[in-house]
Amino acid sequence: RINGERLWDSLMEMAKIGPGIAGGNNRQTLTDEDSEGRHLFQSWCEAAGCTMGVDEIGNMFARREGTDPDALPVYVGSHLDTQPTGGKYDGVLGVLGGLEVIRTLNDLDIKTKHPIVVTNWTNEEGTRYAPAMLASGVFAGKHALDWANDRVDADGKRFGDELERIGWKGTEKVGDRKMHAFFELHIEQGPILEAEGKDIGVVTHGQGLRWIQCTVTGKESHTGSTPMHMRKNAGRGLALITELVHEIAMKNQPNAVGAIGHIDVYPNSRNIIPGKVVFTVDMRTHLLDKLNGMVAELMERAPKICEEIGVTFEAEIVGQFDPPAFDEGCVKAVRDAAERLGYSHMDIVSGAGHDACWINDIYPTAMVMCPCVDGLSHNEAEEISPAWAAAGTDVLFHAVVETAEI
Amino acid sequence: RINGERLWDSLMEMAKIGPGIAGGNNRQTLTDEDSEGRHLFQSWCEAAGCTMGVDEIGNMFARREGTDPDALPVYVGSHLDTQPTGGKYDGVLGVLGGLEVIRTLNDLDIKTKHPIVVTNWTNEEGTRYAPAMLASGVFAGKHALDWANDRVDADGKRFGDELERIGWKGTEKVGDRKMHAFFELHIEQGPILEAEGKDIGVVTHGQGLRWIQCTVTGKESHTGSTPMHMRKNAGRGLALITELVHEIAMKNQPNAVGAIGHIDVYPNSRNIIPGKVVFTVDMRTHLLDKLNGMVAELMERAPKICEEIGVTFEAEIVGQFDPPAFDEGCVKAVRDAAERLGYSHMDIVSGAGHDACWINDIYPTAMVMCPCVDGLSHNEAEEISPAWAAAGTDVLFHAVVETAEI
Ligand SMILES: NC(=O)NCCC(=O)O
Ligand SMILES: NC(=O)NCCC(=O)O
Repeated sequence: RINGERLWDSLMEMAKIGPGIAGGNNRQTLTDEDSEGRHLFQSWCEAAGCTMGVDEIGNMFARREGTDPDALPVYVGSHLDTQPTGGKYDGVLGVLGGLEVIRTLNDLDIKTKHPIVVTNWTNEEGTRYAPAMLASGVFAGKHALDWANDRVDADGKRFGDELERIGWKGTEKVGDRKMHAFFELHIEQGPILEAEGKDIGVVTHGQGLRWIQCTVTGKESHTGSTPMHMRKNAGRGLALITELVHEIAMKNQPNAVGAIGHIDVYPNSRNIIPGKVVFTVDMRTHLLDKLNGMVAELMERAPKICEEIGVTFEAEIVGQFDPPAFDEGCVKAVRDAAERLGYSHMDIVSGAGHDACWINDIYPTAMVMCPCVDGLSHNEAEEISPAWAAAGTDVLFHAVVETAEI
Repeated sequence: RINGERLWDSLMEMAKIGPGIAGGNNRQTLTDEDSEGRHLFQSWCEAAGCTMGVDEIGNMFARREGTDPDALPVYVGSHLDTQPTGGKYDGVLGVLGGLEVIRTLNDLDIKTKHPIVVTNWTNEEGTRYAPAMLASGVFAGKHALDWANDRVDADGKRFGDELERIGWKGTEKVGDRKMHAFFELHIEQGPILEAEGKDIGVVTHGQGLRWIQCTVTGKESHTGSTPMHMRKNAGRGLALITELVHEIAMKNQPNAVGAIGHIDVYPNSRNIIPGKVVFTVDMRTHLLDKLNGMVAELMERAPKICEEIGVTFEAEIVGQFDPPAFDEGCVKAVRDAAERLGYSHMDIVSGAGHDACWINDIYPTAMVMCPCVDGLSHNEAEEISPAWAAAGTDVLFHAVVETAEI
């Protein structure tokens, strides 16, 4: 079994970097805080005897050698970047859980046949730079590196420039590495495991996602002196589409969700009718046809709704992945490990996107989930218990070591 | 008659300071650009032989002496600050029109019995610091100076600090000046004069205004892994209240308006359900009972609407004035001037708030309006013709000179 106390200490130590305002973290990708977190992780990996590789998009790979020079490594990891108002565990548990696997192997003086590589994927969250899971997506060949480098944040800063600025642009070509398998431990971010009283979620599938960035254009004018019939109020377009997204999600129950999290109003002045609103619709479900149907309904009805109130609607997909089904062999390794260790477990569908979803497209992949309190995530109050963290990491350890072979 | 060409040249010269991105201006209050515009205005006033006084809230007063040492001055003016995406005439025409009155008196070598003072009121627009007409409000005793200084902008910068920073905090006590009368020339900012083919609007009344800053609070959580029934989506509160405000305005037709121009979403991340949305409702009409009824309906229904979707509603009034009725004598001076000069004119209700609305509470006040193209204002494309500007300033000149007595 892994050392739960050491794992927890490391989680708490990492959480000191980029503290939030309400007990969580603000360690967004490619900020100074991201860089500081990376340095801490690197120092821990080196202390554990690993060598660090960094690729051109900033993905970090800490390697513990295996006994067979020809065997491909087993990869394990997640991400250290957080939401602007994020929790201490989302992503971080998967990276530091991976490190704990290595530390435990060191403690027990176990050599594996396959090397083990702990990975920190750049920009998983996607808040500062859409889409989410950007760097694992480039690694898996879903996006071009140049395209990723050209993403801009809300202040117009380029991804590539910010990566260089914080000093974490490596030299390795992105995606050059071959994997024997990939395992990611993550908190559930939803309420199911806790409600069912299970220690472990064996992730068999994930939801597919579409991020549709919408622009509603009206006409800026004075809120006082413009008569009602002359208004082209882009804010009403936002309002009606907010409710449309909710309606579409509700009528696709069960297991479908939809909401708008990001909204920018122009020019955002109390006495100017909004001339333009830019916002991103997030729609998800684990059935591809249903997902495409939800997006089609939005794309068909939103322009009409806008036309009726005299504003125009444009949309662009800024993030998407289809519902993944994880590798049966790797999933079995996770389920067997939970069973062997005596942890209660259940098969589960991931509600969120993960780097594992992209890696699954190119190498055998699976995920381990542990519960989180009230299913709450992407909130500074996100919480897990040390026992949950330890159980998840125990299962990760056994699945990884079995796959890496002693 | 005034010199229309000189007036237009000055308008174009001022518009070079704080240019917008689409032909208009971004010269928001207490920015470096505001300071630069003030310096230019001051230099013009001094060249016209005026002495400049500045009060503790940055209001500027350029004085041309009268012949009677005991006569109170006739004040004339408006504001040089603009919206973030504002036009070249909103406010500016009233200040530079006042300057043109002085320049014309100089040309004609006319001495008036009462001194004439051209005023630039600080922070009329209210975008950076709510409420609008802040400094004329302090002058008129509506707000305390300390309260005004403590207003903060979206970046948390205090009004008082920014006023000192740009170097325009004067020494004169705010409101110490006594006025014989006040006249403000302004573009209509609405479509009526153009539609009716009139050169001049004789402003008899104004709309009352309420700015209700609302905070809807839900719970930040993950857009993917939070089931629909567990969501507390503050963005839906915004959506439903946007439509409620529209409905209330529509059912109070004619002559009532309502919209939301300012919206801040927290934490504004594509994959976080909004935990909090702060926005300002702008409601106006020229009948006090109707206005209070509109606000009462909002305050009654909004909390219930929010409760139904699991979010909470709080509201605070951040700007308000009751519908003003201007001074009959001053209004007559404006109407007589238009008549005498042969300009087509009509009585009109101001759709927007103006510094004149506050000054009207303490001294005899009236306003002159000229048309603007398509009724468009608070938009960089705001436009007027040189002939409209000249006609409005001619009427201002005659009304002011008649009141100041030769
Ligand atoms: N796990 C997680 O929160 N990933 C961010 C991408 C998503 O929104 O699902
Ligand atoms: N004239 C003008 O636009 N004033 C700003 C205050 C208001 O919103 O009416």
